[in-house]
Amino acid sequence: MKKYIYSFREGSRGMKSLLGGKGANLSEMTKIGIPVPFGFTISTEVCDIFTRTGEYPESFAEQLEENLRLLEVSMLKKLGDPKDPLLVSVRSGAAASMPGMMDTILNLGLNDETVKGLVKKTGNPRFAYDSYRRFVQMFGDVVMGVSHDLFEEALEQMKEEVGFESDTDLTAEHLKELVGRYKKIIASKSSDEFPKNPLRQMKASIEAVFKSWNNPRARSYRQIHGITGLLGTAVNIQAMVFGNMGDDSGTGVTFTRNPSTGEKQLYGEFLMNAQGEDVVAGIRTPIPIQELEKINKPIFDELMAATDKLEKHYKDMQDIEFTIERGKLFLLQTRNGKRTAEAAVNIACELFDEGLITKEEALLKVDASLLNQLLHPQIKKSAEKNVIATGLPASPGAATGKIVFNSDDATDMVADKNEKVILVRKETSPEDINGMCMAEGILTSRGGMTSHAAVVCRGMGKCCVAGCNGIVVNANAKKLIIGDMVLNEGAVITLDGSTGEVILGKMEMQIPELSENFQRLMTWADEFRTLKIRTNADTPGDCKKALKFGAEGVGLCRTEHMFFDESRIHLVRKMILAKDEKGRSEPLKKLQEFQSEDFEEIFRVMGDKPVTIRLLDPPLHEFLPDTESSIADLAKEFDMTADELKVIVSGLREVNPMLGHRGCRLGITYPDIYQMQVRAITEAAMKVSKTGVKVCAEIEIPLVGTVRELEFLRNIVKETINEYIGKINFRYKIGTMIEVPRACLTANDIAKAADFFSFGTNDLTQMTYGYSRDDLGSFVSKYLELGILDADPMASIDQDGVGRLMHICVELGRREKADLEIGICGEQAGDPASVEFCHNLGLNYVSCSPFRVPVARLAAAQAAIRNK
Amino acid sequence: MKKYIYSFREGSRGMKSLLGGKGANLSEMTKIGIPVPFGFTISTEVCDIFTRTGEYPESFAEQLEENLRLLEVSMLKKLGDPKDPLLVSVRSGAAASMPGMMDTILNLGLNDETVKGLVKKTGNPRFAYDSYRRFVQMFGDVVMGVSHDLFEEALEQMKEEVGFESDTDLTAEHLKELVGRYKKIIASKSSDEFPKNPLRQMKASIEAVFKSWNNPRARSYRQIHGITGLLGTAVNIQAMVFGNMGDDSGTGVTFTRNPSTGEKQLYGEFLMNAQGEDVVAGIRTPIPIQELEKINKPIFDELMAATDKLEKHYKDMQDIEFTIERGKLFLLQTRNGKRTAEAAVNIACELFDEGLITKEEALLKVDASLLNQLLHPQIKKSAEKNVIATGLPASPGAATGKIVFNSDDATDMVADKNEKVILVRKETSPEDINGMCMAEGILTSRGGMTSHAAVVCRGMGKCCVAGCNGIVVNANAKKLIIGDMVLNEGAVITLDGSTGEVILGKMEMQIPELSENFQRLMTWADEFRTLKIRTNADTPGDCKKALKFGAEGVGLCRTEHMFFDESRIHLVRKMILAKDEKGRSEPLKKLQEFQSEDFEEIFRVMGDKPVTIRLLDPPLHEFLPDTESSIADLAKEFDMTADELKVIVSGLREVNPMLGHRGCRLGITYPDIYQMQVRAITEAAMKVSKTGVKVCAEIEIPLVGTVRELEFLRNIVKETINEYIGKINFRYKIGTMIEVPRACLTANDIAKAADFFSFGTNDLTQMTYGYSRDDLGSFVSKYLELGILDADPMASIDQDGVGRLMHICVELGRREKADLEIGICGEQAGDPASVEFCHNLGLNYVSCSPFRVPVARLAAAQAAIRNK
Repeated sequence: MKKYIYSFREGSRGMKSLLGGKGANLSEMTKIGIPVPFGFTISTEVCDIFTRTGEYPESFAEQLEENLRLLEVSMLKKLGDPKDPLLVSVRSGAAASMPGMMDTILNLGLNDETVKGLVKKTGNPRFAYDSYRRFVQMFGDVVMGVSHDLFEEALEQMKEEVGFESDTDLTAEHLKELVGRYKKIIASKSSDEFPKNPLRQMKASIEAVFKSWNNPRARSYRQIHGITGLLGTAVNIQAMVFGNMGDDSGTGVTFTRNPSTGEKQLYGEFLMNAQGEDVVAGIRTPIPIQELEKINKPIFDELMAATDKLEKHYKDMQDIEFTIERGKLFLLQTRNGKRTAEAAVNIACELFDEGLITKEEALLKVDASLLNQLLHPQIKKSAEKNVIATGLPASPGAATGKIVFNSDDATDMVADKNEKVILVRKETSPEDINGMCMAEGILTSRGGMTSHAAVVCRGMGKCCVAGCNGIVVNANAKKLIIGDMVLNEGAVITLDGSTGEVILGKMEMQIPELSENFQRLMTWADEFRTLKIRTNADTPGDCKKALKFGAEGVGLCRTEHMFFDESRIHLVRKMILAKDEKGRSEPLKKLQEFQSEDFEEIFRVMGDKPVTIRLLDPPLHEFLPDTESSIADLAKEFDMTADELKVIVSGLREVNPMLGHRGCRLGITYPDIYQMQVRAITEAAMKVSKTGVKVCAEIEIPLVGTVRELEFLRNIVKETINEYIGKINFRYKIGTMIEVPRACLTANDIAKAADFFSFGTNDLTQMTYGYSRDDLGSFVSKYLELGILDADPMASIDQDGVGRLMHICVELGRREKADLEIGICGEQAGDPASVEFCHNLGLNYVSCSPFRVPVARLAAAQAAIRNK
Repeated sequence: MKKYIYSFREGSRGMKSLLGGKGANLSEMTKIGIPVPFGFTISTEVCDIFTRTGEYPESFAEQLEENLRLLEVSMLKKLGDPKDPLLVSVRSGAAASMPGMMDTILNLGLNDETVKGLVKKTGNPRFAYDSYRRFVQMFGDVVMGVSHDLFEEALEQMKEEVGFESDTDLTAEHLKELVGRYKKIIASKSSDEFPKNPLRQMKASIEAVFKSWNNPRARSYRQIHGITGLLGTAVNIQAMVFGNMGDDSGTGVTFTRNPSTGEKQLYGEFLMNAQGEDVVAGIRTPIPIQELEKINKPIFDELMAATDKLEKHYKDMQDIEFTIERGKLFLLQTRNGKRTAEAAVNIACELFDEGLITKEEALLKVDASLLNQLLHPQIKKSAEKNVIATGLPASPGAATGKIVFNSDDATDMVADKNEKVILVRKETSPEDINGMCMAEGILTSRGGMTSHAAVVCRGMGKCCVAGCNGIVVNANAKKLIIGDMVLNEGAVITLDGSTGEVILGKMEMQIPELSENFQRLMTWADEFRTLKIRTNADTPGDCKKALKFGAEGVGLCRTEHMFFDESRIHLVRKMILAKDEKGRSEPLKKLQEFQSEDFEEIFRVMGDKPVTIRLLDPPLHEFLPDTESSIADLAKEFDMTADELKVIVSGLREVNPMLGHRGCRLGITYPDIYQMQVRAITEAAMKVSKTGVKVCAEIEIPLVGTVRELEFLRNIVKETINEYIGKINFRYKIGTMIEVPRACLTANDIAKAADFFSFGTNDLTQMTYGYSRDDLGSFVSKYLELGILDADPMASIDQDGVGRLMHICVELGRREKADLEIGICGEQAGDPASVEFCHNLGLNYVSCSPFRVPVARLAAAQAAIRNK
């Protein structure tokens, strides 16, 4: 007979996928002698079977009765016993934490008969009827589908009738009356009657919990948090204990350390003579946990001992719920506590210092993706803030900019005027996607944590304050109204996506100080990781920042950004508008000087570390204006008519520019542009090398799809460098970006002409999916909503599709050239799951933006430890 | 010692890759007793080594001398013997035929001394000095790089001086004088002197032939004809024989059968007392080969016997060169003769009837790609043609249309006015590529067979007449001037790309009758092939055509073409401009009626054969106008302002529409559109099935990249069909187009939700390469010129890249579902090499345009035979 139910004496912490996190921990606590009210757990397999078939497995009913009997024997009480009824809770609990997403029922086992037994047994009729009332309400809501509001209304009405303000003022009689009214509400709204039989109550509750696994809230929670591959939820049935049985009773929650800072001391709060929900409801102010020592020293000591034991046992900071029933302590739940990045780092280091965990374990304890919190610019702490509104902290980070009210204005301001903007909308929709890309941050007046704006911004890693009810957005008039204040387009505000604050004016930002523990953790990470970490940096400033964060080289230096500089764009345009190679030669010569200076500074900053420089990639039309007025302006500048220039601009325009005349295709048709860039690199490298720096330049050809493209350009690059023969005093390699699917599929050929590969997973992902990032908006929100996509494949490598292509590439490439250097420089390179994938793929390095370098260092160490 | 040189007694026909076609056949002829002037062949390996290193392999000089000695012994003459000199020819000859592309030198061995020996030996001083003159000229031109024109000028001047009109009037003395002048020309133009030593002459000639392997002509010929993978050219050194030694001498060429029709009789011509070049030069009119019987019966009989022997030996029609020297017949070359498609079919069938070859061999004899010639519409033969000019027949086929002078006008006329156009240009350049795509045919006044227009048109399979010198193109004035005739934009002309004729007015076209032999060959093909052949057809008319050509089903029926019909486009636009599902429902209902009628007729025509119907694929903006004026018109029609409509149109516009909101992405966001189509299919199928036809509908979801897209839409399709439950009386499958790289990489998953796969290699190729077909023009001609691409990957499957992806797809797909039906419906499906690739991949069918069905049938049979 397959086992579907485990008593708390049978399970253990290793059985999370079967018993859920809560169930596994209740068993584990029982096993190590922590006082836990007894109970049993129905496995996630039952949920899976029930969800798929609508039925329970064959022996389930039998096992349920058996476990119930064991529970009754242990508690010396019987379910439904009119003299001394056993009361239980029925709680959900999946393998991954999904707080508040699924349903719970407390005080199960009460009916008109058993409640009398409870009265007698406790001598507390008010307690008994209040418990009964709560049970009927929860059961009616969760199991029978009667709106929660109806019960709340009845409660309010009752209070009005009797003239009381607080629930606690109601007497046993009032509550008894209320139970009757609740049952009438249920009878009028549901075709079923409220079941008296406690076993029927239990079975119906189990079913309700199972069904709650697929309620919309739970599904969207799993989607947002990327929780996949679970069977379902387990159900925990546990004897009730009560913290509201008098002054020798109480309830509370506590962390074993401070979850904000990591400081080692109990951090929590409690209430005497109260139930768990009272602590949360905020009617009475909870008391700091330290006060418990004064109120009840023996219980406090017992709690200290238990929490200490749990922390040592789990080797991690614990988040614990407890109840004191008539002077007896029970622990109801323990789990690894959620913490800020700061706390995570400190706790990991201190647990190591305390000898509880190894360095490897310490490294695995910190969620690498959280490190971002510590690194991203934040509003300067000392700054005075004029907070004008507060919304939901929908996507962390901070941003300052001029407000705009639609996508087009955002694009105009950013692209044409180089302004930073905050996009303000009632709510966003897919049409806003371009504007969202352009903006520094998004502010919406409607929508919650799972609104379009919130989901998309978190996906983009962009700051967002959503559902800011205090503001009125008038998009037509382009006005943002907050009370008496009216902000017009162009007004400057600052958003804090971590607090939800909307602040008037520009705020100074700061890069937070990195703590000593942070530095230690990074040093440990470096001991274990085998992946090198480089950075994507186009300027000496970015290079410096990245070095500070531990970058070991530049994995991607994009040269085109240098072309947009005001002093250069004219030259670039002159080059593009020239009729032939001869006409291009003069502007190219001048551009070469500029580029040489750029590279010189970068080489100087990076020292002997490798610097991968990608030759010009974007299509030329990106350097030309495209609005009527800016074309007219430019035409004047170049002594041509607007119509002439328009012909040129429209001639360069493409139907699908992403798949058009760019990358190495440009290099092949305009070799003089690449030659200019190679000369600039060579001269810069020679100059810096003379100062004793061992410059190491990696010249990268973009968008290669066939080996012949690479061979052709490799020859041009080599010949150009060889113009300086006899003077070449630096190391260089010539390689290629791998961003076209065909490059992966023919990597054995391409490797013949490449000293290195670097995966450009942005374009590779777009081409592998057939997605254009610019046009994704029209369907991607629908895709996420329907679960067709779990996550944005631009944020984390799609291991099944793009990953398989990368795997083919590495295998074919290394088959041809065993020591081929292979890295990745796409945006995914800073995503911990992607870093682990790259580690397992055997890449040499990942290259990410400077701020993500520490994330990548830690993720690389974790990957190395996990996959040893 | 590695063997680099083979005497004609050592080689054989199987050694083509080493000895070249000519060399291998000279050996073979020698072996079977055909009278061949003796000689030897320097292998292609030597060319390869010389090309790569600039040097000859070690033992080469030794082997050359040895073979020369053997030749001297055999001919009883010595090279450079002043009394009786051995004269030789030095000819190129690669494994693939490249007529006229590389260099040849005749009469080698002559100098001021040996010419005297030749005079004495032949008693013919004029012959001797003419041979000498020709040798010096060829050597000067080919080996020493002195312009051919200078020698021609000197010859002309000499004729003027002595007052003769024809070369043949010049006496020995004149020719001797000319040799002196030729040498002076060489001395003045070259730093080297004309070498007297015959061995030095020979070595220099060998080197020149090797170098000619990579001359621009030869390279571009190989590129156009897709000749790759060869080592280089072989060099054949052969004793000279002379057809110009008197009336008992002569020279000629003959085919063993008529290469135009295939009729079994010698087909050729000859001249007595002449050299090969005289036959070609056209100074004297050659005599039909049959006349030889009257002039010299014994020689004619000998020739008949030899050609008959060769045909039986090679089991194919032969193209033979012969020379009669003083009454003795020599054969100088044999090869399988080039032939028209008509001849190829007839010869293959008749060789089988004669018992010379098997059916398999007969099938392999016909070049499948040539069959197109027999099938494509041609100008009706009986029609009277007003030929107004004749250019080069640059790309076959015939086309009628209105003339336009630039790409934009072509696009406007075709896209907006639905006209057929002929694009007329001085010469085309990459910017014209859109216009070329739009046009029915291309006419240029400049450029040759390898011009941009010619190369691109052949790649596109589009009719082209190039280099039509008789016309003047004034693009600015939009006038085409032919003598006194001036044609303005819009005038109708017809091009015949097979003859180069430009004809005034519209010509009636005809589909040629298919001969009995053609039908037999097709029947044989069907016996051997294992691949099924379907057709891409959107209309009942196309379906009928394809059935006539042997199609076994429809592999791709595109539904969007039906949307463009005048009676429907209004409804389509109404649907697109509707604000929600409710607004779409009315136009969709009407569209459903139309679509149902379309499908009904197609099902009726196709009977019980499978019909694959692809649901809507293109982005919606393709159905809306995009010029100012047409937007204004449409706005009026829909009672909105032009500005309102413009907002909608520009909202639908995409940066990269190819990678945008189309295919299944549309189906997922607008499920009602797909539901409408499925209802139309279902109702049509039910109706036709009632008439006793066993309808078999394959419903195809386009652009799937993840299995979840397919699952989602498969459910919708199924639910929609199930609306008719109880009435469903036809067979159906639900499958997907495989056109996104990710679909191949995750084919195991996708197979779970698919009853069939069909490769859409057009889009798959574009995404795998990262090419947009629309934007290819800006760099593809450069790519072809530089040899970065051998061929247009849209025309023939790129086996290394796209092919590898297809291979992965088939393997993963069939691993999940062993009997998964997999076909291909991209344009490459009609290309013989691609058909063979698909056969080897184990596909179930290929689906091509109706006219290519016979090509595919034959190619599939050839693939099956070759890969048995």
